[in-house]
Amino acid sequence: MITITFPDGKTKEYAKGITGREVVESIGKRLAEAAVAMLVDNTPRDLSFPLDHNALVRFLTFDDPQGKEIFRHSSSHLLAHAIKRLYPYAKPTIGPPVEEGFYYDFDDLKVSEDDLPRIEEEMRKIVSENYSVERIEYRTQGDAVAAFKDNLYKVEMIQGHEEGSSAYKEGDFLDLCRGPHVPRTGMLKAVKLMKLAGAYWRGDAKNKQLTRIYGITFPEEKQLKDYLSLLEEAEKRDHKRIGKEMEIYMLHELVGKGLPIWLPNGEIIRREIEKFAVECEEKDGYVRVATPHMAKQELFLQSGHLPHYKESMYPPMVMDDGTYYLKAMNCPIHHLVFNHRSRSYRELPLRIAEYGTCYRNELSGSLSGLLRVRMLSMNDAHIYCTKDQIADEFKRVLNLTLNYYTTFGFKDFSFRLSLGDPENKGKYIDEPENWAFAEAELRRIVKELKLPCVEGAGEAAFYGPKIDIQFKTIIGREESMSTIQLDFAAKSRFSLHYADNQGKESSDVFVIHRAPLSTHERFIAFLIEHCAGKFPLWLAPVQVVLMTITDNQREYAHALEAELKEHHIRVEIDDRSESMPKKVRDSQGAKIPLMITLGDKEVTNHTVAIRTLDGKVKFGVRKDEFVKSALQCIAERSLQLPW
Amino acid sequence: MITITFPDGKTKEYAKGITGREVVESIGKRLAEAAVAMLVDNTPRDLSFPLDHNALVRFLTFDDPQGKEIFRHSSSHLLAHAIKRLYPYAKPTIGPPVEEGFYYDFDDLKVSEDDLPRIEEEMRKIVSENYSVERIEYRTQGDAVAAFKDNLYKVEMIQGHEEGSSAYKEGDFLDLCRGPHVPRTGMLKAVKLMKLAGAYWRGDAKNKQLTRIYGITFPEEKQLKDYLSLLEEAEKRDHKRIGKEMEIYMLHELVGKGLPIWLPNGEIIRREIEKFAVECEEKDGYVRVATPHMAKQELFLQSGHLPHYKESMYPPMVMDDGTYYLKAMNCPIHHLVFNHRSRSYRELPLRIAEYGTCYRNELSGSLSGLLRVRMLSMNDAHIYCTKDQIADEFKRVLNLTLNYYTTFGFKDFSFRLSLGDPENKGKYIDEPENWAFAEAELRRIVKELKLPCVEGAGEAAFYGPKIDIQFKTIIGREESMSTIQLDFAAKSRFSLHYADNQGKESSDVFVIHRAPLSTHERFIAFLIEHCAGKFPLWLAPVQVVLMTITDNQREYAHALEAELKEHHIRVEIDDRSESMPKKVRDSQGAKIPLMITLGDKEVTNHTVAIRTLDGKVKFGVRKDEFVKSALQCIAERSLQLPW
Repeated sequence: MITITFPDGKTKEYAKGITGREVVESIGKRLAEAAVAMLVDNTPRDLSFPLDHNALVRFLTFDDPQGKEIFRHSSSHLLAHAIKRLYPYAKPTIGPPVEEGFYYDFDDLKVSEDDLPRIEEEMRKIVSENYSVERIEYRTQGDAVAAFKDNLYKVEMIQGHEEGSSAYKEGDFLDLCRGPHVPRTGMLKAVKLMKLAGAYWRGDAKNKQLTRIYGITFPEEKQLKDYLSLLEEAEKRDHKRIGKEMEIYMLHELVGKGLPIWLPNGEIIRREIEKFAVECEEKDGYVRVATPHMAKQELFLQSGHLPHYKESMYPPMVMDDGTYYLKAMNCPIHHLVFNHRSRSYRELPLRIAEYGTCYRNELSGSLSGLLRVRMLSMNDAHIYCTKDQIADEFKRVLNLTLNYYTTFGFKDFSFRLSLGDPENKGKYIDEPENWAFAEAELRRIVKELKLPCVEGAGEAAFYGPKIDIQFKTIIGREESMSTIQLDFAAKSRFSLHYADNQGKESSDVFVIHRAPLSTHERFIAFLIEHCAGKFPLWLAPVQVVLMTITDNQREYAHALEAELKEHHIRVEIDDRSESMPKKVRDSQGAKIPLMITLGDKEVTNHTVAIRTLDGKVKFGVRKDEFVKSALQCIAERSLQLPW
Repeated sequence: MITITFPDGKTKEYAKGITGREVVESIGKRLAEAAVAMLVDNTPRDLSFPLDHNALVRFLTFDDPQGKEIFRHSSSHLLAHAIKRLYPYAKPTIGPPVEEGFYYDFDDLKVSEDDLPRIEEEMRKIVSENYSVERIEYRTQGDAVAAFKDNLYKVEMIQGHEEGSSAYKEGDFLDLCRGPHVPRTGMLKAVKLMKLAGAYWRGDAKNKQLTRIYGITFPEEKQLKDYLSLLEEAEKRDHKRIGKEMEIYMLHELVGKGLPIWLPNGEIIRREIEKFAVECEEKDGYVRVATPHMAKQELFLQSGHLPHYKESMYPPMVMDDGTYYLKAMNCPIHHLVFNHRSRSYRELPLRIAEYGTCYRNELSGSLSGLLRVRMLSMNDAHIYCTKDQIADEFKRVLNLTLNYYTTFGFKDFSFRLSLGDPENKGKYIDEPENWAFAEAELRRIVKELKLPCVEGAGEAAFYGPKIDIQFKTIIGREESMSTIQLDFAAKSRFSLHYADNQGKESSDVFVIHRAPLSTHERFIAFLIEHCAGKFPLWLAPVQVVLMTITDNQREYAHALEAELKEHHIRVEIDDRSESMPKKVRDSQGAKIPLMITLGDKEVTNHTVAIRTLDGKVKFGVRKDEFVKSALQCIAERSLQLPW
């Protein structure tokens, strides 16, 4: 007998040599149906693997990341199986799972997108035929080569020991593979082939070009349907597409990658966001500075950026008086501002804010739209305070952040309190008292503010604990939006100090790093996706369009335009000789929140007819009332229109 | 007989061998008294020089730059003469004129600042003794060495042929010198020694340290007095001193030269100026963009910056996808914005503005305060228009600029219309029709706007004519503030084009470059000097200080503070237990425009007592009236306070 231990700690005795499948069937029917493979002492195995010693066993389903990977890997075999049935001369090469689904590369296969449905059909047939998927071990390399002698790619892999000497067989399809795999093809119920692409054997353009087919699979049709509509939604909300359509930003090959140019519409959004932030910070007692975008290497040696962060920084520029680097962060220069003259305890907490620009040398291949860029603009600040003030300042920053999120209508976020690790002292600055104090304080604040929060031991920065805020985007992507960090290390690196209320020099200056609105690049990408380009009135690049029904209303329209402009409302006139439905469609396309229709009745009665972007219509609104309500909606940065 | 030609073209016959002095005496008594030397066929000569051939002769007075240099050079001999009388063991080394006066370096001289008046006294004595200054020519180097054998520095210079083999003698003081010099020490009437400094022989720190004495001289006492009061005024208004005292900006060696850090007070001024500019530009129909601070070298090759302007640019940064440069100007990226999609004639003129940041690689030795920096921030814009629109757009920009100057209270400026040069075609873009048209248009506009204007042929940019605006600072320095440039070249370099009203592609796009507020660095330096740090209310970093007479008014003061803050007025409270005169002095030191005194009477009557920075006092102003008037003064950006 052997003892099997399960993840919940329970154990059970079984006869030696029992298979995973028999074990899982002894546990329960639902798990047995869902299990795609198992971990035996953390090694992934087929369910058919015989257990011959005491072991820790965990069954994997599609919901486990590892289970999903095995499921998708089995799906690539399914695809190759279907291809071999339809195109017997095609040569399967490799077919791994990827982040979204799987692919398989084939040689000697000529297919077009039009063929994909037929291939899918064949895959579904194999699924319904529900073959069992069996592992074959070859005694020798020679045996393996013999089995795959018709496919030189597989032979090359066998000789290079790349896939071991095992294969998997379903029906009469055999593929070289380490495994493990799902036990039966019938599990791969919901199948979708996504696209075709070209690829090279071993990614080398000197080799022959292969045909790559991408696909995705799920255990249930409903999951596939949900996935496809999410994809459609993501495409609809894609900030790159909307950013281009709405002329928010552009990229240009002469400027280079990761360096977005904000077009007038984007600059309006950026300025409105920054104006909002500055107003809030003014109320919270911040002062503002503007610092150069570069500094001498000596500064970044002192700050620790060059020793620890150099590979993320731009290359140096050697000038006649030294070597300069573009800054990757604003903090070092803010520390110099703090220290430029002696400070009194009366000045603390000193909250130094900046609309800062930083530069990170990301690999060009990793750059994408506004989400990953090389020049970062951000509403940044550093708060210099005493130990006693940490709690208050953290609370203030958290409240400020929550206020921002409420204003933008963000709801799906959560907090993580990232703590140090007493077991791993080398990783963190050695101030045990400060760690204990600060962690307790942050824990208390999170509780007091009733924030949904998990704790992460060993997730702190080396210089202190922090609170991270994670977002789930509307299309389900996880994003890290903001982080509020406490820093015990700056005070010694930069000799921060102040005169306390006894006139004595104290170096107990704590720094809080915070950028609640992330970088403007990332934030606006997020915002575009969040509202699908339908910005709230205060942020919309064009807020109001005045549409005349005939030329008779031109004068009225221009007078109203002048009035709205006087109030800094961003307004356009559409007095083209086009039909009203066409004008409405164009304005909807431009995502203008308020469409104002002006006909003779409106001129006579000094009214306007309002149509909102989400289709509400209201006639006979007094013009003055309209202006007043629109202004109020903008001033309050409301998410809802008054109509 | 020889013929002497004078600068006015007149000629006169003289006996061969006549001296300059005799000639000038024959012309007129005033010139003879003022002449310090002469140019004979453009070579400077002593007045005692005998004229022995036909020549062009111009007499130099102190008012000529060359005359001034000779005057100051003679003054350094005067200083050395006095030193040798007082300190016979001192060894004069070299003593040149410099931009402001002259200096002389001595070895074996121990003096302190306290000795300067005594030395000045001795110099004045030599002046009153009115020695004639005589030139001595040595036949051989040996003769010259023999004459200066007691001074090894002079011997070294003789042997190095550095000062020729001539000397000048006044009384019994002899100095090795090429000359020329003033004819008599009596001309050097007004003498002032400014300061002492250390210096090394030949500027080499390995040599012995010498004592340098700086001085200045004028022909008249009044000129010296005026100069000294100007110096005093300049010192009082020095933007470096005021910038530090008022905490407007700082420099830091770890950040590097020419990279000012705007401190909170400076950032307020910068933001207010930019806000003002944005408001004005909004009314003028500008749109705003924000562009990256760097771009690929390919862009700057296309723009012509790398071929023509590379030495002013920062060094390149090589990244994984190409070579990048920090931008020296914003125009190239604005051109890309113009061209990022097809443009219609309806969009022209398109006015693209940006708060831009540019980088220029100035030599570190040339950098100074805010006046010469390496990172330039500016309210920049480029206007894209058709030929027909050039005149209107220039007029708009000129009016905008004049509006700015009026608001800031600038009066002492003048315009220059900088034209091409038909004689020098290679220097300018070859579009004769556009030159003729544009120059005539600009001339017409300048006349229409009645601007004081001179014309400068051959002063245009290579790409078109421009209007430059020159300022005279309050301390008399000439400064170039703004320039409005027309550009015919960008359209072909960047293939600028639009669809005209017939739907036909036209490439006739003219670009106007304009930055009426200069760079913010230079502009704020100028502004600080202009107002000596006493900013108008709307710009003052702190606008109002509330000073309580006793603790009884604290509540009233804090309520008023809250009210002012609600209106975004920048207010501070001074409720220290200090005397009122001390509080007033401190606020005056901080240059706060409005000092509000609050005593019991004010609390009872809901009034305030106002004291302005220039000393006006008004009691019993109703609190509401005060708030209203202050707000109006700020909103109107008035230069005058309402009280």
